Amino acid sequence: MQKLKERILSEGRILPGNIIKIDGFLNHRVDMALMKDIADEFERLFDIGGITAVLTVEASGIAIAAMCAAEWNVPLLFAKKAKSDNIEGGLYKSDIYSYTYRKNVTLLMSAQWLKSDDKVLIVDDFLANGEALRGLVDIVDQAGAELIGIGVAVEKGFQPGGKTMREAGYDLKSLAIIDKLDGNEILFRE
Amino acid sequence: MQKLKERILSEGRILPGNIIKIDGFLNHRVDMALMKDIADEFERLFDIGGITAVLTVEASGIAIAAMCAAEWNVPLLFAKKAKSDNIEGGLYKSDIYSYTYRKNVTLLMSAQWLKSDDKVLIVDDFLANGEALRGLVDIVDQAGAELIGIGVAVEKGFQPGGKTMREAGYDLKSLAIIDKLDGNEILFRE
Repeated sequence: MQKLKERILSEGRILPGNIIKIDGFLNHRVDMALMKDIADEFERLFDIGGITAVLTVEASGIAIAAMCAAEWNVPLLFAKKAKSDNIEGGLYKSDIYSYTYRKNVTLLMSAQWLKSDDKVLIVDDFLANGEALRGLVDIVDQAGAELIGIGVAVEKGFQPGGKTMREAGYDLKSLAIIDKLDGNEILFRE
Repeated sequence: MQKLKERILSEGRILPGNIIKIDGFLNHRVDMALMKDIADEFERLFDIGGITAVLTVEASGIAIAAMCAAEWNVPLLFAKKAKSDNIEGGLYKSDIYSYTYRKNVTLLMSAQWLKSDDKVLIVDDFLANGEALRGLVDIVDQAGAELIGIGVAVEKGFQPGGKTMREAGYDLKSLAIIDKLDGNEILFRE
């Protein structure tokens, strides 16, 4: 997606440890016009005609998922991280490792909001090691729901998540795949 | 807001400990058409003509804030909870107590995304003890930005947050104020 790549090139900052910060438009200050463009691009890439929900995980996937859900007139579902007092029984749970927070995290989804007759598109802002997506796919499987595909805004192609998901057969589409952060240069996959 | 109150009455479930669960349309599975109605109601209640950003805190405020930001063509800002590796220096920080997670939490906002010339509307899904809002107001103060108002979807009026904020002079508007959860009955403030 050319517009997204241009924003990454013009506003992204490379930090030590292969970190690319694009929090000025994607996941801290969010440009909702760009989120709408991302939703439109997902609509072009996936057969969203029959979907019944958009699924993401808190927190930074919610803005993209909200715009997709609003555009497509389906509910936004977001899995929660960790157990709070406000979620009772009847849960799908999936344990993942958070590289961001360097600890294990349990993704939670109330079973009443995701059923076997649901058709789901998973979306997220970032894909690196793929743990969050693995957890979301696991939750869709536990529900017996149908996974239509996985849409990601920015994939770090030099980390293993995307390759693993594609080799496992998932229909994963990333709108910008960064294959290398080289000094101050950002190299995209063609 | 009549439509929101009707949804609370028809879909809300009262749990022990004065908990009202409305996660089927507000903060786990989210009805984006309702979020748009909420954004429209905030637009009616506040002078949003000159605002430069909508501010909330992760995670469950993001869906409402995203719709407000999309409708009003301004950026969505969301404060983050706790320190992750992906946020470096130059931060506004505010320590709050999370009753949901029963621990202290630090709200973080990169100083580069909120400046003294910003005019901000704070929005959130829920108001109970008001700690999250207190932290967000503190962040706006640290930035020297102008606070236009605070818009909340659902306030638990029997908990002290709303009263405290109003007595402190903030322009707080809640679209549904629940004054009492009595057995299976939900009583709204007129």
